Amino acid sequence: MTDYPKMTAEERKAEYAKVTKEYEDLKARGLKLNMARGKPGKAQLDLVSDIFSLMQKPEDYVSDGIDVRNYGELSGLPAAKRLFAEILGCKPEQVFVGGNASLQLMYDTISKAYTHGLLHSERPWCREPVVKFLCPSPGYDRHFKVTESFGFELVTIPMTDEGPDMDAVEEAIKDPAVKGMWNVPKYSNPDGIIYSAETIRRIASMKPAAPDFLLMWDNAYCIHEFEGDYVEFPDILSECEKYGNADMVFEFASTSKVTLPGAGISCFACSEANMAYMEKLLTVQVISFDKVNQQRHVLYLKDKAHTLELMKKHAAIMGPKFRCVVEALDREIAPLEIASWRRPKGGYFVSLNAMPGTAKRTLALCKEAGVTMTGAGATFPYGKDPQDSNIRIAPSLPPVEELEQAIAVLCVCLKMAALEKLGV
Amino acid sequence: MTDYPKMTAEERKAEYAKVTKEYEDLKARGLKLNMARGKPGKAQLDLVSDIFSLMQKPEDYVSDGIDVRNYGELSGLPAAKRLFAEILGCKPEQVFVGGNASLQLMYDTISKAYTHGLLHSERPWCREPVVKFLCPSPGYDRHFKVTESFGFELVTIPMTDEGPDMDAVEEAIKDPAVKGMWNVPKYSNPDGIIYSAETIRRIASMKPAAPDFLLMWDNAYCIHEFEGDYVEFPDILSECEKYGNADMVFEFASTSKVTLPGAGISCFACSEANMAYMEKLLTVQVISFDKVNQQRHVLYLKDKAHTLELMKKHAAIMGPKFRCVVEALDREIAPLEIASWRRPKGGYFVSLNAMPGTAKRTLALCKEAGVTMTGAGATFPYGKDPQDSNIRIAPSLPPVEELEQAIAVLCVCLKMAALEKLGV
Repeated sequence: MTDYPKMTAEERKAEYAKVTKEYEDLKARGLKLNMARGKPGKAQLDLVSDIFSLMQKPEDYVSDGIDVRNYGELSGLPAAKRLFAEILGCKPEQVFVGGNASLQLMYDTISKAYTHGLLHSERPWCREPVVKFLCPSPGYDRHFKVTESFGFELVTIPMTDEGPDMDAVEEAIKDPAVKGMWNVPKYSNPDGIIYSAETIRRIASMKPAAPDFLLMWDNAYCIHEFEGDYVEFPDILSECEKYGNADMVFEFASTSKVTLPGAGISCFACSEANMAYMEKLLTVQVISFDKVNQQRHVLYLKDKAHTLELMKKHAAIMGPKFRCVVEALDREIAPLEIASWRRPKGGYFVSLNAMPGTAKRTLALCKEAGVTMTGAGATFPYGKDPQDSNIRIAPSLPPVEELEQAIAVLCVCLKMAALEKLGV
Repeated sequence: MTDYPKMTAEERKAEYAKVTKEYEDLKARGLKLNMARGKPGKAQLDLVSDIFSLMQKPEDYVSDGIDVRNYGELSGLPAAKRLFAEILGCKPEQVFVGGNASLQLMYDTISKAYTHGLLHSERPWCREPVVKFLCPSPGYDRHFKVTESFGFELVTIPMTDEGPDMDAVEEAIKDPAVKGMWNVPKYSNPDGIIYSAETIRRIASMKPAAPDFLLMWDNAYCIHEFEGDYVEFPDILSECEKYGNADMVFEFASTSKVTLPGAGISCFACSEANMAYMEKLLTVQVISFDKVNQQRHVLYLKDKAHTLELMKKHAAIMGPKFRCVVEALDREIAPLEIASWRRPKGGYFVSLNAMPGTAKRTLALCKEAGVTMTGAGATFPYGKDPQDSNIRIAPSLPPVEELEQAIAVLCVCLKMAALEKLGV
């Protein structure tokens, strides 16, 4: 097998005919497979469904003297704060435990900045002529969408192997209209990159022109290794504090991929000054989040060590799926020199860069053959990948047997699109 | 016992000495009682805690073919929509099932109007020079606080025995800056009034100058009778539709006082056009609410008839508490002509009007004697009761024995404050 760019026109023609035949055969199978979203598979749901057997004894209804079944405790159960604090490495009093979705807490933080302003805002962001937000890309489409929905101008920051390009960030934050930055610092979505110590130091010590710069630190995959041991990661709150930036950061996490997606618990963590400010705003909005579910999670997860044991069991389900994807790419695509991809050890995605100008075509072909993928461009601001290259693969939902078929389809589509681009 | 206003100065002096003595005796008991919030008591929590025994069998994880444990179904489980629709008398497709707090859904609706505008808004409300909101008063302090927090101008509308004074409402809505109105239409908070058919007709057929007028219809106590049979109540969505106002209303409800406060499920109901508009905004904010808890509630409550049976059991706990309050007032206060109160048959409050100018003093005295009540003025916009008269009694939390003591304290404080006002 020669790599495609080096093939003669004749060879490409022949290869295209062969690959198209393979594609038609796969299409004829009438597949209906989904690699679009970081959605856990059924085996992972079954793994944790013994959580429903808890909360059976009256003593389970009480936590630190609080009847978890009644109203109250806006910022969450102290025991749930302790659990998240231990996992994130911050202090319990820096933790606000919310409902089933950290995305909602993130949206709400941005929304509050917009409607009321943050602790150090001169005015609510809706009164600013322009608000710009830094989007390390490829990144998480839902993050970008939140800031886009408030009319912010999204500024693309390139990703490097160590996290966001900090030269670009440090330049951008000189503009006082730049109000914040999205981050998935551990096993970034979709690259699976762990921000380096130096990147974190530069982030924590930033001196943005905006006094109310908002570092959105979505630690979505903080304990989500699927290969190898748990990787320690610095507490961003104390890092920021070290450089006089205690109030700059809001960290987010959830158990959506620890217990149940959509029925877990979430949190944000921030300085105590930010906490006091946010609680004053949040008390208008909600009496308390679901403390029964918080208690259920405290009883189920117990502490960090016990939670990490559970994550090993998730890894035993997730690991083979990721290996299946990467091995297929290594076997089918690597020799052709038409794409590159990362080999993450945690998180929920494999990020693949196809030959520039072929991502859209590749995914259209996949769709036609019954394989749904995250839309091309989704990992960039406004859904527009300037290179039309990045493809996010989410292998968690299908069982391995289905995944093998789905990735086979993807490989064939990558080939077809590349050959078409090179000319056939 | 003569009524106080008719007493001579001498008689009042003697009475004040007697009442003060009673007060000091009560104070000496070192009570710590709470009638501040519509918080269910422990007996009510225990009544429904068998809800935790559900979700044990794998077939319970599936509803209409949906695995409730995974992401998805932004607007909620179809079965949960059917349950709320049956209770409210609207259509399932008009229902969005949310998380544990209807207050959060209400806040979010107002917030979305502010940040993005509603379906018929010319611009987001944050771009309006002035936004005014109608607040039938006495009303629910948390409602008023939400609109106050966005800087809206709160317009007091008097309450009558049939609901808000509709002459005042119809006059007010000629102003295009008047963007909406709060309502607790059945067993209003705190008066316990059921809006009359004529009031509802006039509300549903309003012609507000604002094209995006928002009728906030918090049907918090839709099935919350504690005395007598369930009272049928019209579906506001079809009422509004009848008069060409389909998109004017958002209705809210929850199971906070049906199952567990803070761990129930909530919903909003609106026209299908509004639903499509809101889902487009909400999909940016959240993937899905807690469907496991929605399913738990579907399994537990089953349907309207079964839910009404459960409400009878709540009534058996709540009824005696309300009777205890009203009987004490009848016995202790009625002959004195210093206050009046309502006799609700549902909801969570008794609304008492003390002699004008004495509410604050009464509640300060209560507090000193260890009885916490909703703050004076809380039932009016900006927390300011122009008459300093309305007192909201929330008898649900304390057991009857404690309630008897608490109400005894309140009665003595009412007497002292009235005598002080009349001159002693």
